[in-house]
Amino acid sequence: MTPSTLPDLPPLSAADGRVHARYWLETGDDPQRAAEVIAGEQSSGTFTAVPGETPALKARSGAVVEQLQLLDVVSQPSLPGILVAPRYQRCLLELSWPLANFGPSLPNLMATVAGNLFELRQVSGLRLLDLAVPTAFAAACPGPAFGIAGTRRLAGVATGPLIGTIIKPSVGLSPQETADTVRQLLAGGIDFIKDDELQADGPHCPFDQRAAAVMQAVHAAAQAQGKQAMVAFNITGEVDEMRRRHDQVLALGGTCVMVSLNSVGLAGLLALRRHSQLPIHAHRCGWGYLSRHPALGWDYAPWQALWRLAGADHLHVNGLANKFSEADDSVIAAARAVLRPLDAAHPMVAMPVFSSGQTGLQAAPTHAALGCTDLIHAAGGGILGHPGGIAAGVSAMREAWVAAEAGVPLADHARQHPALAQALQTW
Amino acid sequence: MTPSTLPDLPPLSAADGRVHARYWLETGDDPQRAAEVIAGEQSSGTFTAVPGETPALKARSGAVVEQLQLLDVVSQPSLPGILVAPRYQRCLLELSWPLANFGPSLPNLMATVAGNLFELRQVSGLRLLDLAVPTAFAAACPGPAFGIAGTRRLAGVATGPLIGTIIKPSVGLSPQETADTVRQLLAGGIDFIKDDELQADGPHCPFDQRAAAVMQAVHAAAQAQGKQAMVAFNITGEVDEMRRRHDQVLALGGTCVMVSLNSVGLAGLLALRRHSQLPIHAHRCGWGYLSRHPALGWDYAPWQALWRLAGADHLHVNGLANKFSEADDSVIAAARAVLRPLDAAHPMVAMPVFSSGQTGLQAAPTHAALGCTDLIHAAGGGILGHPGGIAAGVSAMREAWVAAEAGVPLADHARQHPALAQALQTW
Repeated sequence: MTPSTLPDLPPLSAADGRVHARYWLETGDDPQRAAEVIAGEQSSGTFTAVPGETPALKARSGAVVEQLQLLDVVSQPSLPGILVAPRYQRCLLELSWPLANFGPSLPNLMATVAGNLFELRQVSGLRLLDLAVPTAFAAACPGPAFGIAGTRRLAGVATGPLIGTIIKPSVGLSPQETADTVRQLLAGGIDFIKDDELQADGPHCPFDQRAAAVMQAVHAAAQAQGKQAMVAFNITGEVDEMRRRHDQVLALGGTCVMVSLNSVGLAGLLALRRHSQLPIHAHRCGWGYLSRHPALGWDYAPWQALWRLAGADHLHVNGLANKFSEADDSVIAAARAVLRPLDAAHPMVAMPVFSSGQTGLQAAPTHAALGCTDLIHAAGGGILGHPGGIAAGVSAMREAWVAAEAGVPLADHARQHPALAQALQTW
Repeated sequence: MTPSTLPDLPPLSAADGRVHARYWLETGDDPQRAAEVIAGEQSSGTFTAVPGETPALKARSGAVVEQLQLLDVVSQPSLPGILVAPRYQRCLLELSWPLANFGPSLPNLMATVAGNLFELRQVSGLRLLDLAVPTAFAAACPGPAFGIAGTRRLAGVATGPLIGTIIKPSVGLSPQETADTVRQLLAGGIDFIKDDELQADGPHCPFDQRAAAVMQAVHAAAQAQGKQAMVAFNITGEVDEMRRRHDQVLALGGTCVMVSLNSVGLAGLLALRRHSQLPIHAHRCGWGYLSRHPALGWDYAPWQALWRLAGADHLHVNGLANKFSEADDSVIAAARAVLRPLDAAHPMVAMPVFSSGQTGLQAAPTHAALGCTDLIHAAGGGILGHPGGIAAGVSAMREAWVAAEAGVPLADHARQHPALAQALQTW
């Protein structure tokens, strides 16, 4: 039973004021001993007994094995290693730490719950499944400044999903070519446009020129349409660069900035969030190396929790029937995690972003799985490929969501909506 | 043939002014097509042809498949995925990008060479093996401000390795208890002491109090010994916190700060480096989730290159015969990578840090593999476990390195060095 085939587990609680983490663990050692080694290594213990680790110190600072539930046994280890055993026991392990070990610090929390433990020789598989921080921790974190309500307000979309798209080609367009592309998308009535994560501040498409040209197009369209679309400008870079580009977007009347989380890190996002007056669109590029092997790394639930605590307003979750290797149930679990309150007093809910091979066909199953429309649904070919043009493509996406909310089959709804009818022939 | 069993490959060159990356790739698709998909996805292409991707744009901005060398074929994919095939071809893939795509920006470089490619459905295994940036890129990066020479100068260790240790218990000591531990270590003549990566700025051991108490012990010992040991204070945190703590260490006369790289991210380290006047000791905690499965993620060579470009002076590489799951050849490859110049004009060499279950027994094989002593050798039990006390433990470590450099067997050298002789009975 790997992390991807586990049944739904109850959410972790940090009501006792401690930080809790749940892992899927596979070990060739005695599971109880392996659990104690992990708990020790990530708190007051080390490989050997040290004189200073008194019982009082351990009681004050040691991590606690809260739960160890045995799952199945396998004969081959999921990850190669030095410890060779006849059998490898898989388990669910819950650890807890006193908040006083690191205080309400996200970077230090990460070093504790996901530090030097994946390398342990006792570990032939380890995946962080869930994370819960106490209210005192959440209260000290900035969290998303805009979230769902703020994003809806700035994008002028009171109900339904934000229908979005990504500027393509990803790189290589000049600032003016980028603005021309944006102009066409805006004329089609799109709600949300984002830079590709590969588009940064290269010499052929300098950020300031691109932002200025794009925002000119945005304002022109807003004047014509009475509603300003949201454009997420990729400001990924060093802290001072991000702040400066953020200020530039703000000065130009823009309403969103984007960063690649794995590129800037928690300290990078926190520095931006402490400065930002705009929603932060958080891209997860690189997520594959953190998650692609089921017996190693991170589930999305704990990972996105760190970034929401740090201030991400929108979080990418891939999409149903996507073009990548992720299964649909994993995509839905990720989106549900983004929409689940982190803490009763500090829910810090963010907006999931669905993208990758998306069309209106994914509207109904996405809505059915989430029960809401608080999301960004980004489509490229699903919109641009419409034979009636971009406006018809956007309209077809919207009508697909109207049908999904009403519980009406797409084919039925399409009878009254020719753009949707036409789209159904190409999707 | 997995990345860990590949023969030594020639270092990548970026002499053509482009960024080069080498991957180990496993694919159930046609390898040439898979390579083109990866190159396209990480530059101007996307899943489908888009109107704006003109031949001129592609020539300007597209990534190039520089080399595709077929290795072996396997019948089962290394990573689960959606694309099921009768056979999976393993290959070495080298890609290159024009620097103009992202400019000399480390965070955006990371999004390009290690972004949305591990998730591709064509990929059943992908590992970044090596990375080379052109001189123009390196020239724009800060790099280590101190490196080997600066570290030796500040630590007062002109030749031989810095003999170091880690404060244990990792967490739970009060500032005064920490200083007492440091005082004992310093009395033993140790060169280098570091905080554990779990020790941060919690309420039971506030950073400022700990730093002040420890530096008092450091100055007292320096006055007695005529040489100030280097203490790496863990300042991992938000950017402003790191800057403030750095200033505090500097004001107290300290000579080193430490950060957990995966916790602060590239933007975090860069912000610290732009501010710092002290060597930055870089901890890799979390490295296991980036590397533990051989068919996924990062080799150490490209990963450490990013952090050296960003300014890391010391980089952890585990140790020979370590207590974790890493094999010795991987440890040595990591250390060699840290010591290899990044660029002729900007070598940016950093100091490898060996730790985990280390004693003087690892001196000779470590020296034989590296051919130099430009390293920090950190031992806990290997020093503290000496029956003659800490000073004897430090002396035994030093003499083990003297023997290693002279090519004399430890047992022979021990005849003239009783502390070493005693140590050999316990190591």
